[in-house]
Amino acid sequence: MTTTPSALLTDLYQLTMLQTYFAEGMQETAVFDLFARRLPPTRNFLLAAGLHQALEYLENLRFTAEELDWLMNCGRFDSRFVNFLAEFRFTGAVHALPEGTVFFANEPILRITAPLPQAQLVESRLINLIHFQTLIASKAARCVLAAPGKLLVDFGMRRAHGAEAALLAARAAYLAGFGGTATVLAGMRFGIPLFGTMAHSLIQAHDREEDAFEHFAAVQPDNVVLLIDTYDTEAAARKLIALAPRLQARGIAIKGVRIDSGDLADHARQVRRILDAGGLRQATIFGSGDLDEYRLRELLASGTPIDGFGVGTRLDASTDAPILELVYKLQEYAGKPRRKRSEGKATWPGRKQVYRQTTADGAFTADWLSLETHPQPGEPLLQPVMRNGRRLLAQESLDAIRRRAETQLAALPPALRDHQTPASHPVHIAPELRELATQLDSERH
Amino acid sequence: MTTTPSALLTDLYQLTMLQTYFAEGMQETAVFDLFARRLPPTRNFLLAAGLHQALEYLENLRFTAEELDWLMNCGRFDSRFVNFLAEFRFTGAVHALPEGTVFFANEPILRITAPLPQAQLVESRLINLIHFQTLIASKAARCVLAAPGKLLVDFGMRRAHGAEAALLAARAAYLAGFGGTATVLAGMRFGIPLFGTMAHSLIQAHDREEDAFEHFAAVQPDNVVLLIDTYDTEAAARKLIALAPRLQARGIAIKGVRIDSGDLADHARQVRRILDAGGLRQATIFGSGDLDEYRLRELLASGTPIDGFGVGTRLDASTDAPILELVYKLQEYAGKPRRKRSEGKATWPGRKQVYRQTTADGAFTADWLSLETHPQPGEPLLQPVMRNGRRLLAQESLDAIRRRAETQLAALPPALRDHQTPASHPVHIAPELRELATQLDSERH
Repeated sequence: MTTTPSALLTDLYQLTMLQTYFAEGMQETAVFDLFARRLPPTRNFLLAAGLHQALEYLENLRFTAEELDWLMNCGRFDSRFVNFLAEFRFTGAVHALPEGTVFFANEPILRITAPLPQAQLVESRLINLIHFQTLIASKAARCVLAAPGKLLVDFGMRRAHGAEAALLAARAAYLAGFGGTATVLAGMRFGIPLFGTMAHSLIQAHDREEDAFEHFAAVQPDNVVLLIDTYDTEAAARKLIALAPRLQARGIAIKGVRIDSGDLADHARQVRRILDAGGLRQATIFGSGDLDEYRLRELLASGTPIDGFGVGTRLDASTDAPILELVYKLQEYAGKPRRKRSEGKATWPGRKQVYRQTTADGAFTADWLSLETHPQPGEPLLQPVMRNGRRLLAQESLDAIRRRAETQLAALPPALRDHQTPASHPVHIAPELRELATQLDSERH
Repeated sequence: MTTTPSALLTDLYQLTMLQTYFAEGMQETAVFDLFARRLPPTRNFLLAAGLHQALEYLENLRFTAEELDWLMNCGRFDSRFVNFLAEFRFTGAVHALPEGTVFFANEPILRITAPLPQAQLVESRLINLIHFQTLIASKAARCVLAAPGKLLVDFGMRRAHGAEAALLAARAAYLAGFGGTATVLAGMRFGIPLFGTMAHSLIQAHDREEDAFEHFAAVQPDNVVLLIDTYDTEAAARKLIALAPRLQARGIAIKGVRIDSGDLADHARQVRRILDAGGLRQATIFGSGDLDEYRLRELLASGTPIDGFGVGTRLDASTDAPILELVYKLQEYAGKPRRKRSEGKATWPGRKQVYRQTTADGAFTADWLSLETHPQPGEPLLQPVMRNGRRLLAQESLDAIRRRAETQLAALPPALRDHQTPASHPVHIAPELRELATQLDSERH
């Protein structure tokens, strides 16, 4: 388990509804879809992520003795219902988009088919898990598209929203194409490549900046990337020129420098000149500090000589779009399609499939949302991944997911790849689905 | 422990720096401040939160056998250093603002005094913990100020960034003045009051809306709050008028309704009229759906008859300001004040204290940031809370913190309470602190 497993990590209303379902014997099969109601204005596509943690959650879902005790004594639930919860397991089926799949508004990313109480209870945590990783993978994908061929590293742990966010942001960014993360525990848990050398405090704790550089290099001879902006960036670069021969004599090469403040474009250019003139042509320049896809594109468009970037806060909190309107809605119960009609929040009923149409060379042309019983041309995207509460497939490796994401991003039409101009992919609603919705609307409730 | 305790939940550079400090024998006392570099444009003040989890982290910090094993085999660290980590404990001192204290830019919210490696390693997680709760408490405080006397409930779990964010958002919102949360686990772990009744799926799973209402009421007779916007809000309100006498005959009262979509102001007015005319004057109206302090103020300013609000996504992700520029900077090492001079990121050196000046009746007038050795008039805000790695005080109750926050918010000058107009509180820098900074700037590094 890489995540918090508690069954009580849910909204209270799930339990009050379950008590009603239990009292009424409403245990028939429900079908819920998890989908994005609409995309944020700054997102032309989303990248599916978080399925592994969602399945892990469903497989391990049960109430502990301590939790059952608390439920029994909290004054809201009777003992028969709590006994029912003691036996609670998820025994349903899951269809899902494979992680790393591009998707759009109204397209189910996950479909749960299970007895109503089971399908209901899991709503809050399923959204919580899928929402966050999809949010970060989608943001990271935009950074990757903005900086082709550059090394991008997740630096965001400190301002990610808590521990789980830090860990799962590292995972989501890596599967979207980042080269790695600074978060050690994410390296240990997920096998993601780790990056990191020093902060300003190491420089400050030494009386002389050059001593800090030299001591650090001696201790980490294979990973000499030096932070040069603590006092005066260009002066520090010149100190490296003086230091390099002494290190070389000990068999140590300066691998690179990091710049974390000021006008990165200007400093990188000056530092590049100093390093090149001083015989440190092979030393790379790594930039960090308030970076995101907008800033990356700007820096690279102006030809800034930076080889890699640490992307932190703005990635891990997805600051330009910190939430997605992911929702989880009942589409069928007891064999009958269902439709919520709330203003601005109406849903497409029934068991659905997403069909993706592409050109001969794989570029996306259009998607169709249709009832499963009415296939459309194109590739069906939702795959069966769990039946009777057990996974149907072995866990995918993170690298396999990463390769899928790469292929998917390569197939995006140019308008959707643009990070500044809003564009939307056509998602057509099949006629039979429209008819079903109209028919349900005419019913009295 | 309410949070993930792993010592590897840190940035890799902390460990590479520690290896350097270890190799060089740099174990003297370091002083780090955790503070906000500046406030977001939409925040006139911040509310300190997260200290309890930060202290819990420091008290429990150690590397597990599995983690030490991984470090030994990851190819970056030698065995002497890993053995040093096996003995690693936090033995330092902490000064902090009590949770629920209002603070401003440049004012330390936490000061760590410890041997350099200890003070260094904890940076990433301390920021991660304090940042998130302070972010949410500050956002929640704005909602509380916007809706005086109204019940506010945290509804944000599903779009909080992961499990820990969901739990700690509930805590932070409650201490800032929210009435409770929908997140069950937060109720169990922190004793926060829980709220919640039903989602649209319960209505949809029944063929007739009135059956859903009636069955739910029969099962939860003490908590009959009915969601009325699944199909037609006003029509549903009229169904309740018809249902109420039948329920009353069974001794069940309709406590309230919830509206979650459409024009809340308009629907609330119409529903209030229907309920009042139908003899349900005592039934309250609860609103939810994309709410935040801006929308709350708007709704209440127009006299909307809503008694309570569920505030979800926009609270738990603090969408208008999803991060704070909280940083953790070395201010002294081995008895010598230190100052980072990076462009736009220079810090105030030395061991400091914040002094708050108020009017006779407690309203804030100005703050002074000063060296601890040069006290200023006013109340010193930083308190000693940990020494030798152990807490100095018993854990404060969440309700005590909540009362402090209430007093602090009441003492805010009106300009800072305004949620729409940017305003800043004067934070003066004492002359001796300015002199120290100037003196350090003149030194060669």
